Amino acid sequence: MEYPEIKNERFTVQYIITINDKRSIEEHASDITLEQTVEVPEDCIPEKHIEDGIIGIVENIQPNGDIPNQYIVSISYLTDITELSIPQFFNVLFGNISLKNNIKISDITFAESFFSVFNGPNYGIDGIRKLLGVYGRALACSALKPMGLSIKELSKMAGLLAKGGIDLIKDDHGISNQKFHPFKERVSRCQEAVEKVNAGRERKTLYFPMVSGRFEDIEEQIQHVLREGIRGILIAPMLVGPDTVRYIAGKYNLIIMTHPALTGTHFHDPNHGIAPSVFLGTLFRMLGADISVFPHAGGRFHFTEEDCLAISNSLRGTNGSWKSTLPCPAGGIHMNRISEINEMYGVDTVYLVGGSLMQHSTDISHSTEVFMGKIKSLYNEKLCTPEAPITSSCEIPSGPEQIIHQPIMRCEEFKWSGRFIEEYKTDNDFDFRGISRQELIGKYGEKTSFDLRYFEIEPEGYSSLEQHVHEHVIIGVRGNGVLIKEDSSFNISVHDIAYVSPLEKHQLRNKGKEPFGFFCIVDHKRDKPIVMK
Amino acid sequence: MEYPEIKNERFTVQYIITINDKRSIEEHASDITLEQTVEVPEDCIPEKHIEDGIIGIVENIQPNGDIPNQYIVSISYLTDITELSIPQFFNVLFGNISLKNNIKISDITFAESFFSVFNGPNYGIDGIRKLLGVYGRALACSALKPMGLSIKELSKMAGLLAKGGIDLIKDDHGISNQKFHPFKERVSRCQEAVEKVNAGRERKTLYFPMVSGRFEDIEEQIQHVLREGIRGILIAPMLVGPDTVRYIAGKYNLIIMTHPALTGTHFHDPNHGIAPSVFLGTLFRMLGADISVFPHAGGRFHFTEEDCLAISNSLRGTNGSWKSTLPCPAGGIHMNRISEINEMYGVDTVYLVGGSLMQHSTDISHSTEVFMGKIKSLYNEKLCTPEAPITSSCEIPSGPEQIIHQPIMRCEEFKWSGRFIEEYKTDNDFDFRGISRQELIGKYGEKTSFDLRYFEIEPEGYSSLEQHVHEHVIIGVRGNGVLIKEDSSFNISVHDIAYVSPLEKHQLRNKGKEPFGFFCIVDHKRDKPIVMK
Repeated sequence: MEYPEIKNERFTVQYIITINDKRSIEEHASDITLEQTVEVPEDCIPEKHIEDGIIGIVENIQPNGDIPNQYIVSISYLTDITELSIPQFFNVLFGNISLKNNIKISDITFAESFFSVFNGPNYGIDGIRKLLGVYGRALACSALKPMGLSIKELSKMAGLLAKGGIDLIKDDHGISNQKFHPFKERVSRCQEAVEKVNAGRERKTLYFPMVSGRFEDIEEQIQHVLREGIRGILIAPMLVGPDTVRYIAGKYNLIIMTHPALTGTHFHDPNHGIAPSVFLGTLFRMLGADISVFPHAGGRFHFTEEDCLAISNSLRGTNGSWKSTLPCPAGGIHMNRISEINEMYGVDTVYLVGGSLMQHSTDISHSTEVFMGKIKSLYNEKLCTPEAPITSSCEIPSGPEQIIHQPIMRCEEFKWSGRFIEEYKTDNDFDFRGISRQELIGKYGEKTSFDLRYFEIEPEGYSSLEQHVHEHVIIGVRGNGVLIKEDSSFNISVHDIAYVSPLEKHQLRNKGKEPFGFFCIVDHKRDKPIVMK
Repeated sequence: MEYPEIKNERFTVQYIITINDKRSIEEHASDITLEQTVEVPEDCIPEKHIEDGIIGIVENIQPNGDIPNQYIVSISYLTDITELSIPQFFNVLFGNISLKNNIKISDITFAESFFSVFNGPNYGIDGIRKLLGVYGRALACSALKPMGLSIKELSKMAGLLAKGGIDLIKDDHGISNQKFHPFKERVSRCQEAVEKVNAGRERKTLYFPMVSGRFEDIEEQIQHVLREGIRGILIAPMLVGPDTVRYIAGKYNLIIMTHPALTGTHFHDPNHGIAPSVFLGTLFRMLGADISVFPHAGGRFHFTEEDCLAISNSLRGTNGSWKSTLPCPAGGIHMNRISEINEMYGVDTVYLVGGSLMQHSTDISHSTEVFMGKIKSLYNEKLCTPEAPITSSCEIPSGPEQIIHQPIMRCEEFKWSGRFIEEYKTDNDFDFRGISRQELIGKYGEKTSFDLRYFEIEPEGYSSLEQHVHEHVIIGVRGNGVLIKEDSSFNISVHDIAYVSPLEKHQLRNKGKEPFGFFCIVDHKRDKPIVMK
C-alpha cells in the first residue's frame, strides 16, 4: 500500500501528565517529543531534524483544572513519521511512553491525510439502520454463549434469539475455532438458523461471528463469513492486532463490531494509558468499527458514566469524513436497566444483553420478545423495508493481483506453453534482423532477480550490436550460432554457455541454414542497452 | 493450521489478586474462572460444562506473604479452550479481566501441547553464538538512529558500527517505511554497508532491520530481508499483533529480536496487568523471541532490578522444549555501566547501547571500538569461526572468489569447460542421492544477480526435499526427470522450464534409466534452504 507524499502536515496528541518528581512540566513534555520520535539524547539531534520538524513540537501546556501537579499538554507530530500505517502510528502515539509513568492520552486531532488513508466505518449508524430498516429506537443485540455448547445448541440459540425479534446476534468473544465447535461449521449452522427465521418475515436479524483466527487463517475465515452471506463480524483489535482489523475493514464490505478484550490495562490507572474515549472511541472508529462494544458503568467492570459518555461522544461526534459508530454498552447489563441506559446514550445505541436473557426464562425466544417489547415501549419505533437482501455472497473482492506463473512450461518445437512469441525489439534505433523472443520467467509475477528469455534467429539473422552494464548468460538451445564480442567471435552449439561481461560490445548471429535458438538470462533490474552504430 | 485434539489437558495461570471490596478471595477467584471462559452468570452454566472442565478451576489460594488483602491464586484451564492459537490464548489469559481491577498475571505453567504447537526461539542463545562465533562474553548491540536521517547517513552509520566491531546492529524501532527512508532501499543499503565490512575479516556483524509493516505488506518485507541475506529482524509484538510475530518466527528461519513498544501499561500498576517477566519473558519467548529487549533498571524507564532479573530468568530458564532467549537490557544505558550490568545478568546477555555511543565521540567507529574494548576486558572472550557465511549466497561454502569467468564454456557430454563437477551438498542434514552439480555462473567473479548451476541426477537419485524463500527456475537439459512440488509432480523433459514459488516444498527425482540433467537458476543472494524431514 502506498500513502501519499505529505509535506509538513502535522497532527496533534493531547496528554494528561501527572508529575511526581522534581522536573518541570516543560521537561516532561520535551521528553515525550524525543522519546516518541528520534529517541536520542537532546545533544545528539542533528540540526536538520529540528528544521524539518521530525521532533515532536510542544504546542500548548496548561494546568488540568485544580488537580495538583497535573497538566494538559498538546504535542504535534509530522504526519509522515507515522508512515500513515497503524503499527507505526500506534508506536508514535504510545509505543515507548507506555513504559513511562503517569502519561495519559486524552485526545487526538487528526490531519487531513489520515482521513484519506483511513476510511473509518464502512456502514456507520445510517448504514446499519438501512440494512435493518429500523429507526427511532435503540438496537438490541445478544450473544451466543457459553463457549463449549455443541454447534447444534449454539445454532438453536441463534434461531431462538432471531425468532424473539432481536436485531443483532454476536458470538461470545471467547468462541473461536475450538475443536468442540470449529469455526466454519459453527458459523454456517448459526447463520443458517438465523436465515431460516429471517426468510419467513420482513424484519431481519443479523448474525456477527467472532473472528479471532491466526494470522494465516483469518482471511480465510473472513471469506467463509462472506460466502455464507453474513454481513458483519465481531473482532477484538488487541487480540488479532489493530492493523489486522484496519485491513479487514478496508478490504471487505463488512459491518465491524469491535470488542475491548485486552485493552483494559490502559484504563486501570486514571493517570496512565490511552483514555477509553480515545482507545475504544476514536482509535477503534479509525480502524473501522461500525459498532464499538465497551463495559457500561455499573456492570461487571469499573467504567464510570463519564468514561462511557466520552466514548460515545468519540464514536458519534464529527471526526473528518468518518461515519458515526454505534456505541454498544455491555458487560452484565440487566434488561431492566434499559430506560436508564436510554437516558444516558439516547437512541443511536446498541443494547447488548447476554446472561440477563438466559436468567429471565429458559425460553430464550420468549425472554427476547419481552426484552424487545421493553425497548419498543420506550421509543417511537419506525420501520422500513430492510435495504437489501441480507444474504448476499457476491461481494468477495478478489485477492492480490493474479499471479500467472506456471508450475511447468512445456517446450514443443521451441515454443513454451503459456508464453508468447514476441517481437525482438520495438525500438527503431536498433539494427537487427529475423529475430524473435519469448519471455519465459520474470514478466509473469515471479519475484526472481533475473529474467529468462528465449531468442530465435533465422538463417542470416542477427541481434542488435549493443553494449550495457548488465551481463548476459547465453545457453545454446537449437542449431548453431555465433557470438561476436568485441573483436572475437565464438561458435555456440546446443548447451554451450556464453558469458558477456559488463560493457562488452556484443551481437549474436546465425550464419547457418537452420534456426539458431538460445536462452538468455539477465538481471531483472538492468540498464538499457546502448546501440552501437 | 491444525492443532492436535487434546482431551482433558490443562494449563495453569497464577494471579496476584488484591482485594479492595467486601467480597472474599474465593468469590474473586471464582469470578475469573467464569469471566475468562463461559462468561455467563453462575446459575446459567450447563451441568455438562462443569463435568467437561470448560470452566476454570481454582487450584490453589494463598496469602501473598504479609501483604494485606493480597493473594496468590492458581487457576487451571482446559488447553482446548485456547484453540492453541495466540489470539484466543491471550484472550483466555487476560482478555476481559484486563478490564477489571487489581488482577496481575504472575506466572504461567504450560501443558505439553503448547510446546508441540509453539516452537519458541529459532536460534536461541546457542544458535546466535554459533552464527557469530563469539563465546565467553556478553554480546553488544547498537541502533541505527535517529529516524529521519537519509539512507546514505543510516547506511554509513551501519558501516561504522560494523567497523568498530559491534556484534549486532538493529534499526531504531521508530524507523519503518517512511517516505524519507523507505524500507526496501534502506534495508538493502544498510546490509550492503555491513556486508562490505564483514567481507574483509573473519568476525561478523549482524544487522536486524525493524519490521513493522502493514498486515498486507509485512510478509513482503520479511522476504526482502531474507533475499538480502539478512539473518534477523527487530519486531514489536504489540505493534504488529502478537500472532503476527509467532507466524513470522514459525515460517521463516530468522533471528527474532522483540521490542516492548506498547506493552508498558501492563507494568504501570504493580497490582494489575501481566508481569514483565511473563509478558516480555515467557510470552515473547513463546512467540519466538531469540532476543528480548526490555528497559533496564535505572535507565529512562521505571523497571526495578527485581523486574529485570525476573524477565531474564523467564527468558533463560528451562521451559519445556523452548530454546533460551537472550535478555537485552536497554533504554538509555550508558556504556560505562556494563560491569554493573554484567554482575546482574551474567555472560548470556546483549548490551544495547545507542545514544551513549553517539555522545562518547562523533567518530562512532571509534566509540564502538572503545565500547567493545570495555566488554572484552570484562570477560574471557573465546572466538570461533562463525558457523556459516553470514551473507549466505550458497549452499556450499565456496573458497576465495576466483575471477575466471570465461567467454565461452564448451559443453561436452554435459560437462562444461572451465567448470567442475562438485558434490551436491556437504551438509549432512539433507537427504539426497546420486546428484552432482556444476557451478556455471555466479561463483567465478561474475556480478550477476543470479547463479546458474547444472545438476545431474543418476537413475533412482534425488535432490533434497527442501523449502526456501528464493525461487527456482529449472530447465530440462538431459534425459527426463520429475519435479515434486507440494502434493503435485511434473515431468521435465529437455527444454521444459519449471518454476518453484517461494516456500514451496520441492524435490527433483530421476525415475528413468538415463541421467537426468537440468539447469537451475536462482537469485545470487538467497536464503538458506530449510530441510524437510
